[in-house]
Amino acid sequence: MIRTAFQSDKTKLDRPQALKVALVGFGTVGSAVARLLHARRDEPALELTHICNRDVQRKKASWVSDRVSWTDDIQEVLRSDVAVVAELIGGLRPAYDWVRRALEAGKSVVTANKQLIARHGSELIELARRNGQQLAFGACVGGGIPVLSGLSQGLAGDRLFKISGILNGTCNYILTRIESGVSFADALKEAQAAGFAEADPTDDIDGFDARAKLAILVWVGLKAQVLPENVLCRSIRNLSVIDFEYAHELGCTIRQVSRAELRDGKLLLTVEPTLVSRHSPLAAVEGGENLIVSTGEFGGETVFSGLGAGGNPTAVAVVSDLLQIARYPLPQPAESDGAVAALSEVSSDFETPQYLRLVVKDSPGIIAGLAGILSKHDISIDAVFQKSGHDKAALPFVITLEATKNSRAEAALSEIKKSSFLIEAPLRMPILR
Amino acid sequence: MIRTAFQSDKTKLDRPQALKVALVGFGTVGSAVARLLHARRDEPALELTHICNRDVQRKKASWVSDRVSWTDDIQEVLRSDVAVVAELIGGLRPAYDWVRRALEAGKSVVTANKQLIARHGSELIELARRNGQQLAFGACVGGGIPVLSGLSQGLAGDRLFKISGILNGTCNYILTRIESGVSFADALKEAQAAGFAEADPTDDIDGFDARAKLAILVWVGLKAQVLPENVLCRSIRNLSVIDFEYAHELGCTIRQVSRAELRDGKLLLTVEPTLVSRHSPLAAVEGGENLIVSTGEFGGETVFSGLGAGGNPTAVAVVSDLLQIARYPLPQPAESDGAVAALSEVSSDFETPQYLRLVVKDSPGIIAGLAGILSKHDISIDAVFQKSGHDKAALPFVITLEATKNSRAEAALSEIKKSSFLIEAPLRMPILR
Repeated sequence: MIRTAFQSDKTKLDRPQALKVALVGFGTVGSAVARLLHARRDEPALELTHICNRDVQRKKASWVSDRVSWTDDIQEVLRSDVAVVAELIGGLRPAYDWVRRALEAGKSVVTANKQLIARHGSELIELARRNGQQLAFGACVGGGIPVLSGLSQGLAGDRLFKISGILNGTCNYILTRIESGVSFADALKEAQAAGFAEADPTDDIDGFDARAKLAILVWVGLKAQVLPENVLCRSIRNLSVIDFEYAHELGCTIRQVSRAELRDGKLLLTVEPTLVSRHSPLAAVEGGENLIVSTGEFGGETVFSGLGAGGNPTAVAVVSDLLQIARYPLPQPAESDGAVAALSEVSSDFETPQYLRLVVKDSPGIIAGLAGILSKHDISIDAVFQKSGHDKAALPFVITLEATKNSRAEAALSEIKKSSFLIEAPLRMPILR
Repeated sequence: MIRTAFQSDKTKLDRPQALKVALVGFGTVGSAVARLLHARRDEPALELTHICNRDVQRKKASWVSDRVSWTDDIQEVLRSDVAVVAELIGGLRPAYDWVRRALEAGKSVVTANKQLIARHGSELIELARRNGQQLAFGACVGGGIPVLSGLSQGLAGDRLFKISGILNGTCNYILTRIESGVSFADALKEAQAAGFAEADPTDDIDGFDARAKLAILVWVGLKAQVLPENVLCRSIRNLSVIDFEYAHELGCTIRQVSRAELRDGKLLLTVEPTLVSRHSPLAAVEGGENLIVSTGEFGGETVFSGLGAGGNPTAVAVVSDLLQIARYPLPQPAESDGAVAALSEVSSDFETPQYLRLVVKDSPGIIAGLAGILSKHDISIDAVFQKSGHDKAALPFVITLEATKNSRAEAALSEIKKSSFLIEAPLRMPILR
């Protein structure tokens, strides 16, 4: 029996040896992990033995123990007796190859690489299992927020069917700034100056970062597999101060919301700017914070929030994964609760109330024309808002729609876009209350 | 080496046998666990084999599988081949004895018994380890909120130094009702009628329930051991609608807050009604919800919230613990990161701004007299609030104090209590902003 087998190993397990750890990648996260391990150096569980980085000599830091080997050769790490490789270089190449080789060399792997896990997580877990090793990736979503372990362990007993959240701190910072009256372009510049946003901010503001995280949350929490490419994402680039003014009139604010819902094999998921009720926990998320809400059949809603990015919070997640491997030095456990959900459909076709903001050259009959198009698509108008004081040559106004599917709203919009009175492309957002 | 030993067990671990589970206690939580296991019956990880309860015949439920043995004899469970006993009877006797005997009989134990774990957790963990078994108790705090696994695993890499939260849904419900204008006595009756509060509500409203949970959070998160009896707790019995009115004037609301802070071996902790800023996550907790905030040196603040009580959320925590044991069928791991913190001092002597509400028979010189006493104790008055429209024979008013230690405020209060103008005992609460 299983228990008897383990009892014979009991004395070994009672006093675990230090787990030898190699850091591969010594940038913001890698050096934060090294500092955290340094701060814990009197504790016996983990021992940093290798740091591997391109051109490693320029990275050498005096506070790192003399016993650590610095190398720019991944082979040296793979040939060594390290038990765990922490992959912190990011990106798909060469990370994918290196993680495979580490697992095949009989090392467990801890990674913060969301693009890698979103694309290859399932295959790498299987490779870890076959090699009697573990793959841990708690740092991929939500920085220091223990949401992945919360979903996979603490809520394992529930049947989760919905996950939503704010998964990208850069977007949240930019939106918070637009809300305070700054234009998108200036808010982006500020975020770049403050180090929140990259020189090329596409991954953040167009939703590619958040959709990789959502794909991982869906895999771990809803046990359904989608590639990031299958998650519809829409940019926050087109938002302006006026949208927040209208959102406030509706008792809402605007956030980049990632959400997924699984019912009867049908998976809906999107990453997009969204109006959220000011009383929602999503509205309370400020600056670079992240927040995730999961909903289960039995346990209801559970909320996790905290610092979603940055060297130190991410390092906490990496070191927590290392400690978990030190505590349970076992092969990756088989999923004990059945297979991945079979999906009959993956789409972005949520049904919600909607916000349409149009900027028009004012003339008689515009509302009547729009109402005609919407009615033709079986869409009911909830209300029309028009703030005074705008130039009639470029007049912004808002139509809210009663609950309608995204696909139907898009069909109506593609017709509306042909109207000659439009000054710029209309902006559509779902409204979550 | 450890890993080689496990690799030889790989084939066994890849296809775990179902873990045989006995439920001991078939009340609200026990029957919710049985229902959840029933809903998951097609999944191979867990198999319910025994249900043990006093006078079990009256409990028999037709939806439970025929293969389950119903018994009122704990001996039968202990002699059986069940791998895990889920102890869901609550209270110290006979739970303490039964849990010990289950561990000694070579069974792991999952429990939702906060009083048991707050008093005997450390000893029982050690007993589990000596017997090659596990003790899991995620259901003891926060119902379905995976906060204990979050602290012990997901945040294991951090050094946590502060934990605060709303740990008792009954108090929170009652306070929410008083806030809407209902008296304490009526709010309590409502809570009892709605099934939120026991016939004897002492455990909830006087803080005994919350302080057991706080002791467990402190043990798991701050790695410091205190008995519940060492946690100062103060009742919500003396709160009235007027306190919420004054709290609102201060931009606050009132919650039963449990908090602990560890610095340099000095542990501060209390459970008491507390003014919290309306912008704090604590203020947003409605009805029976719970919320816990942990603060770490590296990862900053992390928030966990959700349904803190009730059969189904608690059952989720119990089943999650069972699944974790099925995944990692190992002896209780030794704490990999060092010893329990040595404490030089345990006290309730937080330093915060304070709220004093007095009800007096109005006469000249009252404020001057109070100011004199406070000044003698080196306490600075921040402001005095007096709402109009009250009877001068029983006039409530509020003095807020600048940050002062609880002990100093109490010393001043014991002098103030001697004043002849007081109609009822003064009420003091800390103010958290």
